[in-house]
Amino acid sequence: MYDVIILGGGAAGLGAALYSARYKLNTLLIAKEMGGTGLIAHKVDNWIGEPGIVGIPLMQKFIDHVKSYKVPVVSEEVTDIKKNKDGTFIVKADKTYKSKSIIYTLGMKHRELGVPGEKEFSGKGVHYCYVCEGPLYQNKTVAVIGGSDSAGLGALFLADYAKEVYVLYRKDKLRAEPITAEQVYKHKKIKVIHNVNVKEFFGDKFLKGVKLDNGKETRLDGVFIEVGHVPLNELARTLRVEIDKNGFIKVDRAQKTNIKAFCAAGDITNANTLKQFITSAAEGSVAAESVYRYVSQGIWDRRG
Amino acid sequence: MYDVIILGGGAAGLGAALYSARYKLNTLLIAKEMGGTGLIAHKVDNWIGEPGIVGIPLMQKFIDHVKSYKVPVVSEEVTDIKKNKDGTFIVKADKTYKSKSIIYTLGMKHRELGVPGEKEFSGKGVHYCYVCEGPLYQNKTVAVIGGSDSAGLGALFLADYAKEVYVLYRKDKLRAEPITAEQVYKHKKIKVIHNVNVKEFFGDKFLKGVKLDNGKETRLDGVFIEVGHVPLNELARTLRVEIDKNGFIKVDRAQKTNIKAFCAAGDITNANTLKQFITSAAEGSVAAESVYRYVSQGIWDRRG
Repeated sequence: MYDVIILGGGAAGLGAALYSARYKLNTLLIAKEMGGTGLIAHKVDNWIGEPGIVGIPLMQKFIDHVKSYKVPVVSEEVTDIKKNKDGTFIVKADKTYKSKSIIYTLGMKHRELGVPGEKEFSGKGVHYCYVCEGPLYQNKTVAVIGGSDSAGLGALFLADYAKEVYVLYRKDKLRAEPITAEQVYKHKKIKVIHNVNVKEFFGDKFLKGVKLDNGKETRLDGVFIEVGHVPLNELARTLRVEIDKNGFIKVDRAQKTNIKAFCAAGDITNANTLKQFITSAAEGSVAAESVYRYVSQGIWDRRG
Repeated sequence: MYDVIILGGGAAGLGAALYSARYKLNTLLIAKEMGGTGLIAHKVDNWIGEPGIVGIPLMQKFIDHVKSYKVPVVSEEVTDIKKNKDGTFIVKADKTYKSKSIIYTLGMKHRELGVPGEKEFSGKGVHYCYVCEGPLYQNKTVAVIGGSDSAGLGALFLADYAKEVYVLYRKDKLRAEPITAEQVYKHKKIKVIHNVNVKEFFGDKFLKGVKLDNGKETRLDGVFIEVGHVPLNELARTLRVEIDKNGFIKVDRAQKTNIKAFCAAGDITNANTLKQFITSAAEGSVAAESVYRYVSQGIWDRRG
């Protein structure tokens, strides 16, 4: 019987593991792959103290730190979580594990466009996080694919760096919040192209541009795909964990869900709209504090 | 006119400065001293990715990162903040500065005991954060001074590491939460000594023990002073920023206060009970997102 099982090996899961270990909880971390979305962040300049570090080495530093506490880590995919009548949990992966509490940090996947070249140029001109890699495109020509508020905010963010920003959207009007849309349409550096779909990404070692379904090609240095996210909430749903309309797990300020002894942290939660390594790692740490108080003292008071 | 003035140079202020700079806000950071409580953390093992780093070099890494964005930093003490009718702020320090928004990260001071030897052995056996330095006292003899819930939780935390834990309290019964007090009184490794005050800390290069006002001396390797905190909220009070009964600034999940364009982050807020570098830096980053949305789009919607 573990004190806590942490699901997920990204910044939130690793932050939770570090603090769980410091609280001397008998901890198990289960992750299909260690590193989470850190693995797709090409260059990161937003982890304070590490200017310009690349995602993978940053995650490796987190992993090494957690390993220094000898937290057992298993690389398995969790297929089911059940809650027993006595309040403990059963986690099914390749093996079956028991725990007094859960920290769920499975995050979300950026929705992919699903067109040729996307995987090939991922991290080499094709990106899914403008806050992460946008600043690298100083005086370059970039595009955002999508028409949501995130897409609009991305275009505005990128316009502070890039020479020229295209917004490529499949409909005839941005669905971003009106104020965002207005700013995008008015911005001198931003050009919105409506009613187009990207058919293909092309380039050699790096991206050179996109082919559109109107027959045209556009030369681009970088493309930011903002066509939504897929929160990985399925396993939580089966336990009746409360989920908001966007698919994020509802947590209180202590990262507690509506299910006793079940915390969530990181991109999967509704805690922060700013979904970054720093917020995820902090949420993981706070979740560890919550399960520590529960496991050691039986306290599960939700807060605001 | 700055877009944002950040008050305070600890983890929260530096996290806010990094993100403000990334959002291309015209930013000024004002701090009496850079580094905040990081300066008194002797050895830190809770900043993920940096096992065992000492507080000062960690803060220096943060400072260097912020400086790489050329954020202006002034070392002055702020004496007054005023809000103009047009919604902008006037910040008085040695000079007077104007800003569209404020991120307030002045944190709190650990209350000192105020007895001889305390300053001399600070960081050399005398500490103010058991989560930070407690794990260094594996198999040692330590004491907690205080009878609050924090003091009790500190004793329980330390008992996982130390050989022996004394709780030195001036009254005849711990005022910790009943469940905490019960665990402390029952714990085999913990000995509570009531009705005593520490008169003096003694040692040579490092702490060796304390003198009590009952005439006795106790040999100790480490002492954790948990006699409360003093949130540095005075400047916010004058602006009628809402403050909770413990002196912390009330913030929503986006670090917004009741005063438009005025955010707070870090130890000074009621956002987290886990007051650590990681939570402070995250809160600072989120506050920067909030002022960015306000300054660039005029949006100031508070959230739950």
